[in-house]
Amino acid sequence: MEERKALSEDDPYANDPRRHPALIPSAEKPYNAEPPVSLLMQDFLTPNDLFFVRNHLPVPNIDPESFNLEIGFENGKMRGLTLDVLKKKLPSKTVATTVQCAGNRRSDMVKIKPVKGLNWGIAAISTAEWTGPTLNSVLRACGVDIDTVDCGHIQFEGLDKGPDGTIYGASIPIELARMLKDDIIVAHQMNGVDIPKDHGYPLRIIIPGVVGARQVKWLGKIVLSKDESTSHWQQRDYKGFNSSIDWHNVDFDSSVAIQFLPVQSAICEPEDGETLDDDEEVTVKGYAWSGGGRGIYRVDVSADGGKTWTSATVEPNGQSPYKSWAWTFWEVTVPIPKEHEGKVELICKACDSQYNVQPDSVEGIWNLRGCLSNAWHRINVQVPK
Amino acid sequence: MEERKALSEDDPYANDPRRHPALIPSAEKPYNAEPPVSLLMQDFLTPNDLFFVRNHLPVPNIDPESFNLEIGFENGKMRGLTLDVLKKKLPSKTVATTVQCAGNRRSDMVKIKPVKGLNWGIAAISTAEWTGPTLNSVLRACGVDIDTVDCGHIQFEGLDKGPDGTIYGASIPIELARMLKDDIIVAHQMNGVDIPKDHGYPLRIIIPGVVGARQVKWLGKIVLSKDESTSHWQQRDYKGFNSSIDWHNVDFDSSVAIQFLPVQSAICEPEDGETLDDDEEVTVKGYAWSGGGRGIYRVDVSADGGKTWTSATVEPNGQSPYKSWAWTFWEVTVPIPKEHEGKVELICKACDSQYNVQPDSVEGIWNLRGCLSNAWHRINVQVPK
Ligand SMILES: [Mo]
Ligand SMILES: [Mo]
Repeated sequence: MEERKALSEDDPYANDPRRHPALIPSAEKPYNAEPPVSLLMQDFLTPNDLFFVRNHLPVPNIDPESFNLEIGFENGKMRGLTLDVLKKKLPSKTVATTVQCAGNRRSDMVKIKPVKGLNWGIAAISTAEWTGPTLNSVLRACGVDIDTVDCGHIQFEGLDKGPDGTIYGASIPIELARMLKDDIIVAHQMNGVDIPKDHGYPLRIIIPGVVGARQVKWLGKIVLSKDESTSHWQQRDYKGFNSSIDWHNVDFDSSVAIQFLPVQSAICEPEDGETLDDDEEVTVKGYAWSGGGRGIYRVDVSADGGKTWTSATVEPNGQSPYKSWAWTFWEVTVPIPKEHEGKVELICKACDSQYNVQPDSVEGIWNLRGCLSNAWHRINVQVPK
Repeated sequence: MEERKALSEDDPYANDPRRHPALIPSAEKPYNAEPPVSLLMQDFLTPNDLFFVRNHLPVPNIDPESFNLEIGFENGKMRGLTLDVLKKKLPSKTVATTVQCAGNRRSDMVKIKPVKGLNWGIAAISTAEWTGPTLNSVLRACGVDIDTVDCGHIQFEGLDKGPDGTIYGASIPIELARMLKDDIIVAHQMNGVDIPKDHGYPLRIIIPGVVGARQVKWLGKIVLSKDESTSHWQQRDYKGFNSSIDWHNVDFDSSVAIQFLPVQSAICEPEDGETLDDDEEVTVKGYAWSGGGRGIYRVDVSADGGKTWTSATVEPNGQSPYKSWAWTFWEVTVPIPKEHEGKVELICKACDSQYNVQPDSVEGIWNLRGCLSNAWHRINVQVPK
């Protein structure tokens, strides 16, 4: 992998990798970017170089030879596992999972009222096949039985470090870890190759159905602890609040860290603002996904403001309705209302395998950090006269 | 238990039990009723005689001495377990779970457009402690390992029978049964006493987090099968559709049987239509619940049509966020807008532990059977001038 030339010795981002020119950045340092909507659905498994990038700190430079994944109890002695052990000595599993940023579709929330956060469009979501030993087997190799171990949370620490010494970290409750113990992957491969630098080389913890923020990249440490991670991102970020809470009255301790994500969907084709080439019907395509392993049962599309709905053809993703970690693509052709006056609004909404649905409006779910933006997706297109 | 005097030898409902006079019936034969809203939240565990009743057929008369729970493979030999074995020979577990009818709050859907179904208010939901052996231990006693058995669905058959010979039946996918194997109870006790006649005497299968319709009462048979139950209620009822599907264009085979239920909440105090005794603030109380074991993280209440929200105090139910089978009660005092003009609309909406939220409007989730009615709950109250 080529390195970007350091513009300055003092730039902590000087070692960041080169990125695909098609990526659309929402921030440069740390680098954050999503693929163009037109490329998002080209493949069920997003190509690694088009996979959305959500970095909180500079990309670290990690030497695979000296790398050791540290595992242990808080304040206790840490075991170290080399990459060689993780890759060759433990049984390997491959899982296709979708990773979504907590802020995906934040730009829809911003339209209502400003929020603090990167202005993500609808493509801060991507899917890959991840390969590595399961969390269960890694812990067992260290003599820990995940089902009986006395701890409250599993903390994951990254090797990315800010100029002020901040380290990225997150945690999941032990109960969640137990539910997913054979599905959480200590991944060293992404779509069949070593995980690229931007995505966590050499290790990323993959926790299917859970928000991207807990799936720590450049994984350096797994800590069994009584407590949640004390990181900024676990305690003072990535939590939900009602729409009357803003920065003057927020109490982060009153809310609970986001883990599993709610049902989501978005229209990728046509794109917002596009001009259609037909005035009688339109073929609409998009993705749908839900957290917690919930598959997608139905996606409804409307071209008349929600008066009438047509259910889309939902492409099976090969996973079961209760362990559906990956997204599904859908497609439907809907009639364009006669009284279109040159433009039409297209809406989609999904229903998952536990019959959860998306909320109708952004107003009802607006929150100061612009997380969990999963209202019905609405786009406007031009219709030829 | 007293029996109602048979008005006629030919009345298949002649053996139905006497019911609590406070229950509000939505149908008499078969008997269906919900408790008055004013009594719903008196106790966290609903008293048995106030627990909502959802009967599809006449209540059967079952002799506990000769009773045998039959268990086996479809087309194979059935094992029989007596009540004595189920009660005394197998380890017992007690779980507090909320049971909700698929049609709870259907009356809110009817206001938009007629649907087929009993006109339930907001109280077709109740909570009890259920006691009995787990499904896992019952199957193991019959030599079946639920984790490896080769079958697709577990069917449950009731001993209730219609005049035309129809038997009540339902099924759950084996994958769901495996997820919940130690939480599904073959219950013989409800709140510490033998299950009352209306609630399934002597056995009801309790499947936490799942729609009431699959939690078969008067359980007579557990069948391990390749296929789903072929019953009317599994195949031609209790499925979701978009709001443009009505009886002229419905294809029941195109949808999937409802199992886990989505997040729900309702205001119980004040009641719809009530006159408040204060014009400055109002204390609002209600319940919230979600399927799939998801606990409740937040309930928001608005007295100004959703412009501002106050988060309620959510009473812990003693269960974990990922295995939260029982409802939670909540309470909040909200200011009444100055420009109230003698009336005000109160709204509540809940957010569960996977950050699923309720949809804003009934219009978006209307369906021909009026199931899954979980839009924001809205009531109107009078304010003194
Ligand atoms: Mo994120
Ligand atoms: Mo039901």
